[in-house]
Amino acid sequence: MPRPSRWPEVMAAAAKVFRAKGYHAATLEDVADEVGMLKGSLYNYITSKEELLFAVVRPPAEQLLEQTRALVAAEGTAPGKVVAIARVHAGVLAEHFVYAAVYVHEIAGMGRYPEWAAMDHEYVELVRAVLAAGVAEGSLRDDLDVRTAGHVLIGSLNWLTRWWDPDGPASAEEMADRVSATFLDGSRSRPAR
Amino acid sequence: MPRPSRWPEVMAAAAKVFRAKGYHAATLEDVADEVGMLKGSLYNYITSKEELLFAVVRPPAEQLLEQTRALVAAEGTAPGKVVAIARVHAGVLAEHFVYAAVYVHEIAGMGRYPEWAAMDHEYVELVRAVLAAGVAEGSLRDDLDVRTAGHVLIGSLNWLTRWWDPDGPASAEEMADRVSATFLDGSRSRPAR
Repeated sequence: MPRPSRWPEVMAAAAKVFRAKGYHAATLEDVADEVGMLKGSLYNYITSKEELLFAVVRPPAEQLLEQTRALVAAEGTAPGKVVAIARVHAGVLAEHFVYAAVYVHEIAGMGRYPEWAAMDHEYVELVRAVLAAGVAEGSLRDDLDVRTAGHVLIGSLNWLTRWWDPDGPASAEEMADRVSATFLDGSRSRPAR
Repeated sequence: MPRPSRWPEVMAAAAKVFRAKGYHAATLEDVADEVGMLKGSLYNYITSKEELLFAVVRPPAEQLLEQTRALVAAEGTAPGKVVAIARVHAGVLAEHFVYAAVYVHEIAGMGRYPEWAAMDHEYVELVRAVLAAGVAEGSLRDDLDVRTAGHVLIGSLNWLTRWWDPDGPASAEEMADRVSATFLDGSRSRPAR
């Protein structure tokens, strides 16, 4: 529906309330109070709390998907693309932390919202295609279980929302590089060659 | 409080309702309906939905912690302990899937329930101690970021609740071994020696 003029305020208030109380505990009344409007007026903007959730998480989810599509389509080998995927993923988390954390918590892999399943699925498939290409080109191990590995990478990145503070000392790029280094080279020490 | 005799039924009903509707959408009335008792009678067993959540997730959480404590204290090198941690973790997920998924979703790393923070923290520290010992003994890379690596391992394992079907063809042990292999040896192919 067309959004009246206070829509950006409504989105910001919703993010603030979702962060403070959690999506499920938050009510549309809390959001209306935060904006300073009557709950009835909020219905000019959205018809349900779920619609507000989707409005809040859609921009970062689309940004992640667009940037990932572009880097997957670009020239390059799989290990370089894994590093790039991790940087895009952590960068989107950092830039939209509250919204992205809500996405990870409520939507990713949950299968609860059919309209989001396609988006979620496309992202998993993009990551998996990079890994499969890496196995085919010989840059990744030929015994790699591509399905599990894709979820290990995505899960490790999404798990950043549970322990990493994007306002702390480690930047998104640093965190991305640490996660992708473990994913690519593992943690076991290697005999000196 | 002392639990009257239908307590196991209440727990099973709560797990079923939490799985079907999600913890937040589920009500104590739903649980009472599932058991076939009045909501008022449910208050002989618990005083809040949150108390029911904790009762439901406590046994698998304690099992994970006890088994992990034991294997960390045992003899052995870090890579072997990483494999063992992954097997214990995936095994507890498989055995108590609904309960464990609720723990991962609502509690792990969320910092929302102070009484659970100590348990959550102890598990993270146990994993980290194994990795730090591995770096010290030389079995793990000397440039390993132990804090990040611990969360990468735990996050990859917890993320199984979002995509792995414990009743499907891949057993918990197989999944654990795939996750720990990626964690230890990475995904990049190695030059033949």
